[in-house]
Amino acid sequence: MPSDLYAVADFCLIPMGTGESSVAEYIAECQRVLEKSGLTFKIFHFGYGTNLEGPWSEVSQAIHDCHTAVHRKGAPRVATDIRIGTRVDRDTPVGDGNDHKVKRVEEILARERAAASGIFVA
Amino acid sequence: MPSDLYAVADFCLIPMGTGESSVAEYIAECQRVLEKSGLTFKIFHFGYGTNLEGPWSEVSQAIHDCHTAVHRKGAPRVATDIRIGTRVDRDTPVGDGNDHKVKRVEEILARERAAASGIFVA
Amino acid sequence: MPSDLYAVADFCLIPMGTGESSVAEYIAECQRVLEKSGLTFKIFHFGYGTNLEGPWSEVSQAIHDCHTAVHRKGAPRVATDIRIGTRVDRDTPVGDGNDHKVKRVEEILARERAAASGIFVA
Amino acid sequence: MPSDLYAVADFCLIPMGTGESSVAEYIAECQRVLEKSGLTFKIFHFGYGTNLEGPWSEVSQAIHDCHTAVHRKGAPRVATDIRIGTRVDRDTPVGDGNDHKVKRVEEILARERAAASGIFVA
Repeated sequence: MPSDLYAVADFCLIPMGTGESSVAEYIAECQRVLEKSGLTFKIFHFGYGTNLEGPWSEVSQAIHDCHTAVHRKGAPRVATDIRIGTRVDRDTPVGDGNDHKVKRVEEILARERAAASGIFVA
Repeated sequence: MPSDLYAVADFCLIPMGTGESSVAEYIAECQRVLEKSGLTFKIFHFGYGTNLEGPWSEVSQAIHDCHTAVHRKGAPRVATDIRIGTRVDRDTPVGDGNDHKVKRVEEILARERAAASGIFVA
Repeated sequence: MPSDLYAVADFCLIPMGTGESSVAEYIAECQRVLEKSGLTFKIFHFGYGTNLEGPWSEVSQAIHDCHTAVHRKGAPRVATDIRIGTRVDRDTPVGDGNDHKVKRVEEILARERAAASGIFVA
Repeated sequence: MPSDLYAVADFCLIPMGTGESSVAEYIAECQRVLEKSGLTFKIFHFGYGTNLEGPWSEVSQAIHDCHTAVHRKGAPRVATDIRIGTRVDRDTPVGDGNDHKVKRVEEILARERAAASGIFVA
């Protein structure tokens, strides 16, 4: 097992005590931090959650740095919810942890639809 | 305030005690449930999280029904993490709660890039 | 399987856009809502998370009503993270879902410590 | 701002693919890891969530080490939900971040009850 597990994460950061209900400016600030981190990430496409993956320590550091950036921008408190997963049963292709999962679900549903329509899918 | 608040949610469901580390079959099961719910949803594109929005009670019922479906498929336990938000400061266009948020972040970053390049964006 | 699954939940509610970094007043507001719900709950003892259990629909309704109360108190947006679990492999004694889990962990650790000290625990 | 923000966290770890619906053995394993970390923590008292606080990097490392321990114990996958907060508006007394929050809510409710009964509380 690697001493720094490969992590696939999804986080949702909320600036608190800012007196503005829009969080878009803060999220944009995070995006800049993540771009600098060099990690694979996809931000905010469904309203909650920025996907981020890489060695656990780097993923954690990048989220920490988002907190620092959001505090600097004026938020006295920052609360984040992180969903993070690791696995040791197969190698996760670097930067492909999340895409892989989506593909598996799509394959299952495609096979099912094909079966329903009488077409065979290997 | 409506008696059933409009909710924008993101949930991540984990079947437990199944003895298989792949969750794709179960997630596909959820997708079928969500399709029947008639709610706006986007599933699993970044590995964690299915986005779902609508009246709170319907969003909650749809997630409950995913639990029922996953139990029926054989999981003795199901654990879900739900991020759910409501707002009363503006109307959320039906089915557009999440798209709207993404657009706001993109606008901010576009404006910033434009500013950096000397182009004016209203 | 019951049509309304018994749910053991833990939620963390964050008022947004309030311009105050303390959330204590809002949490107190939630506590009043939960007291009226009649459900088993324990609030905020470790800084995050209010534990709540009961039929899924009632748990969901109670959290919804917390959102309503917090909006009424002035928060334009409210974001909540809910961890919710259901199981069909054994009956959960009403109001005892969470206590039971703690007890199991304590038993394991007690047995282990006893074993280390040479004492037998059944 | 410190380069390693002080973090107050709450995490819920789920071993996946273990074929057993009880997670108590794995949680006990985590408890041993946390005891060695030297951080302030309280485990699992409400069924979900272990509270943990300290410098962000140490909190993150401790949760990472729980994943390693749970993988070693046989879980091919581990999924964790972490709620983590930082603040820069006041010093968090070391190891007191969560207790402080509880106290604030209790003060508010006590003051309110006293007011209702006609007693004055400063």
